Amino acid sequence: MNIRLIIKNLSIVICIEALCMLLPFFIALLYGQNDAKAFLFSALITLCAGLLMFRIKVKTNNFYIRDGFAVVALSWILVSVFGSLPFLFSGAITSPVNAFFETVSGFSTTGATILDNVEAMPYGILFWRSFTHWMGGMGVLILTLAILPSAGASFYHVMKAESPGPNPEKLVPKIGQTAKILYSIYIVLTTLLTIFLLIAGMPLYDALIHAFATAGTGGFSGKNLSIGAYGSVFIDVIITVFMFLFGINFSLYYHSLKGNFKSVFKNEEFRFYIGLVFISIIVITLNLVLNGFYSIGEGLRYSAFQVNSVISTTGYATADFNLWPVLSKFILIMLMFIGPSAGSTGGSMKCIRYLLLFKIIKRELAKIIHPRAVHTVKIAGKAVDETTLWGTMAFFFIYIIIFVISSLVVCLDGKDLVSSVTAVIASIGNIGPGLGIVGPTGSYSGFSNLSKIVLSFCMIAGRLEILPVLVLFSPSAWKKASI
Amino acid sequence: MNIRLIIKNLSIVICIEALCMLLPFFIALLYGQNDAKAFLFSALITLCAGLLMFRIKVKTNNFYIRDGFAVVALSWILVSVFGSLPFLFSGAITSPVNAFFETVSGFSTTGATILDNVEAMPYGILFWRSFTHWMGGMGVLILTLAILPSAGASFYHVMKAESPGPNPEKLVPKIGQTAKILYSIYIVLTTLLTIFLLIAGMPLYDALIHAFATAGTGGFSGKNLSIGAYGSVFIDVIITVFMFLFGINFSLYYHSLKGNFKSVFKNEEFRFYIGLVFISIIVITLNLVLNGFYSIGEGLRYSAFQVNSVISTTGYATADFNLWPVLSKFILIMLMFIGPSAGSTGGSMKCIRYLLLFKIIKRELAKIIHPRAVHTVKIAGKAVDETTLWGTMAFFFIYIIIFVISSLVVCLDGKDLVSSVTAVIASIGNIGPGLGIVGPTGSYSGFSNLSKIVLSFCMIAGRLEILPVLVLFSPSAWKKASI
Repeated sequence: MNIRLIIKNLSIVICIEALCMLLPFFIALLYGQNDAKAFLFSALITLCAGLLMFRIKVKTNNFYIRDGFAVVALSWILVSVFGSLPFLFSGAITSPVNAFFETVSGFSTTGATILDNVEAMPYGILFWRSFTHWMGGMGVLILTLAILPSAGASFYHVMKAESPGPNPEKLVPKIGQTAKILYSIYIVLTTLLTIFLLIAGMPLYDALIHAFATAGTGGFSGKNLSIGAYGSVFIDVIITVFMFLFGINFSLYYHSLKGNFKSVFKNEEFRFYIGLVFISIIVITLNLVLNGFYSIGEGLRYSAFQVNSVISTTGYATADFNLWPVLSKFILIMLMFIGPSAGSTGGSMKCIRYLLLFKIIKRELAKIIHPRAVHTVKIAGKAVDETTLWGTMAFFFIYIIIFVISSLVVCLDGKDLVSSVTAVIASIGNIGPGLGIVGPTGSYSGFSNLSKIVLSFCMIAGRLEILPVLVLFSPSAWKKASI
Repeated sequence: MNIRLIIKNLSIVICIEALCMLLPFFIALLYGQNDAKAFLFSALITLCAGLLMFRIKVKTNNFYIRDGFAVVALSWILVSVFGSLPFLFSGAITSPVNAFFETVSGFSTTGATILDNVEAMPYGILFWRSFTHWMGGMGVLILTLAILPSAGASFYHVMKAESPGPNPEKLVPKIGQTAKILYSIYIVLTTLLTIFLLIAGMPLYDALIHAFATAGTGGFSGKNLSIGAYGSVFIDVIITVFMFLFGINFSLYYHSLKGNFKSVFKNEEFRFYIGLVFISIIVITLNLVLNGFYSIGEGLRYSAFQVNSVISTTGYATADFNLWPVLSKFILIMLMFIGPSAGSTGGSMKCIRYLLLFKIIKRELAKIIHPRAVHTVKIAGKAVDETTLWGTMAFFFIYIIIFVISSLVVCLDGKDLVSSVTAVIASIGNIGPGLGIVGPTGSYSGFSNLSKIVLSFCMIAGRLEILPVLVLFSPSAWKKASI
């Protein structure tokens, strides 16, 4: 690996983060709370670190896929380390592990929190927390829609497989141009959401932090009761719709803007996503209504919100689904394992991979019944190559293996089984709340430091679709390191 | 499908079952309880049904893989239907669904029970219950080591992949000969176990029913507290060792008898199985001891028993692991998803499939780091073909899909999440007890009839390695049916 060039790349990310810290600094000044100084110090330290790193002399410009992956994985780790400074300096969070956990949770757009009482936090801190979601979402968009497919790793051929155009990474020829389009869509959607929330009666500050967290499919809220604190049907509906929208492949928005609606509606992953959301809402509503939890209207409202919150991996709550009947809880756990469309800001495994999976199973069954026929897996009418299919399979299993190993560690804490296991699912899938003690009204504060570090690793691994993180742990990738 | 020939084949299985019912009939006579008549009636009805079916005229002898699969799947269903008659006629179980569940649980070597108080049952009935395990184990041995590999379905190439000899189905050239060897090994091991249990002080009747249930990796006991009721270290150790032995690929015994020890110890699945058992015992023992449950000696005794009980999918208990710390419970649940070696009498997914899986993941990671190298998955030094690998992948996912769909149905009953989910895992994996209400001291009696039928389906699907059951549900297989 070209370590000098990796550091050079990282330095730019760090400097941008330092600048971003000025935004919550001004918010803190505005509200006149004691956290302004914390942001100023943090920004200065981060900037100095970034500038120091920038001064490194690059000897060679050789840059391979593995180097790109290392930059991506280390970026998420480093921004989380520096991003935790404001929490520590302001005294909002005193333990470094907790501060790191909270910041990883922010940048990975997870929304798992160790804060038991968010409402006691200063305004600047809560703004920063939600803003990390928004920045994380931006990072992911460019990562999964521009960098990864160009890197050509088989895992990401998935993206290639399902796209309305011939090549998703070629929305337009250059990565820089693609990024601009994606960011424009992201900013426009966030702005629209903010406006809608204002119209619905949310104060500007609240509207901003919730818009940031929804756009990044993060889920940090400024309220202990999450969105449920507002008790407004209008706000519930707006957030429900936008959680759904941020779970859609962003390249579909681009194609819609180009007037290419036909290819959008023919998009198999899009239809899979809609179908899954629709069926889950219906079943959970019935389950809730038949068990006497709500009227049909309320049932629809709460189940639609929760289904979209979980499948988009946002993690907001308007009800304590911990108390819901077991079928509803089981469906939500399954949705945590699925997640939204690839190319969205959401986490988890993504619909497209399940779509491929079902097609592979269909092919294997067909092979048995008609052994002599030729069997290919097709998406959008085109055959998907074996490399992509194997990459998809491997992704599933590595994901499950990380889930199992992490669960083993978290189980050491001796919390109940459901809490321990759903904490891991909700972390690796970037959802945030799970069930039991990590349910929508709970927090991750009860876990040991070891568990919090493992869960932080899960959040980053899940967020980066695992591969870049694995490269960091691969001895043979480091063997080729040059200093 | 050649329906007439399928019925002809089934008729033979049914007639054999009728004859087998005479054994518990004599036991019942011996103990002079009122269940003797029930067995006589059941045997007569079953025999009549078998003879009637045997009279069918076969028009053509065309017999394809799908016909073989249909025979296998329908055999397990039919023997369970007829096998439930003694329970009903004797009044031991009054509900037909319960009786069917208990018999499926027997023949599928699961050992899940709906009886809350087995000790109240007559001797003949308990004997029959355990004997169904033993017959089920016999059926599975011949199925997985002789019939399926010859059928050539890609799912079962797995068996081919890992065997000490060149071709596992060719232990000796003919299926009939192979079956004889396997049955001899099975009978010898069962006899040995019975003798050891007698020496350890178990009464003959108890020794027989527990030997039958251990050999079939079933797990029905005549005691409410399972093996724990005897409170004997000696018995615990004997059963622990034999549960381990019945989880080994039977072809390895054949090769040992031939003096081919080297190939046995080089067998990768065997080493994987031993390693997994060993590590699980160590970790669970530590977890139990450090949490103050037992002394080191007791910890080893109980954890070794439970680990072997679960991984071999027997399901006996000497302790209520429901009360164990969460890490131990999580490990046991993971072992439920793994199971013992292929070609044993155990259920679940089998070690060989996980071995292949890890090798596939290793290959995919190697592809990314060294994209230009040639990557093959090897077992025993030989490359495994893509068909086998895809078959293995498909098996995993179909297994998981059946698990998820069945859990959805079982969750409808509104039992707690852990009980509902582990009931399904323990059924499809043919283990028997799960956690919560279906834990070692509980039973499946609390579930609805719908759940019991779904769980029965899981037991049969898991037992037959899914494929034969899927063929039954395949419209295109039936489309080719001829009457």
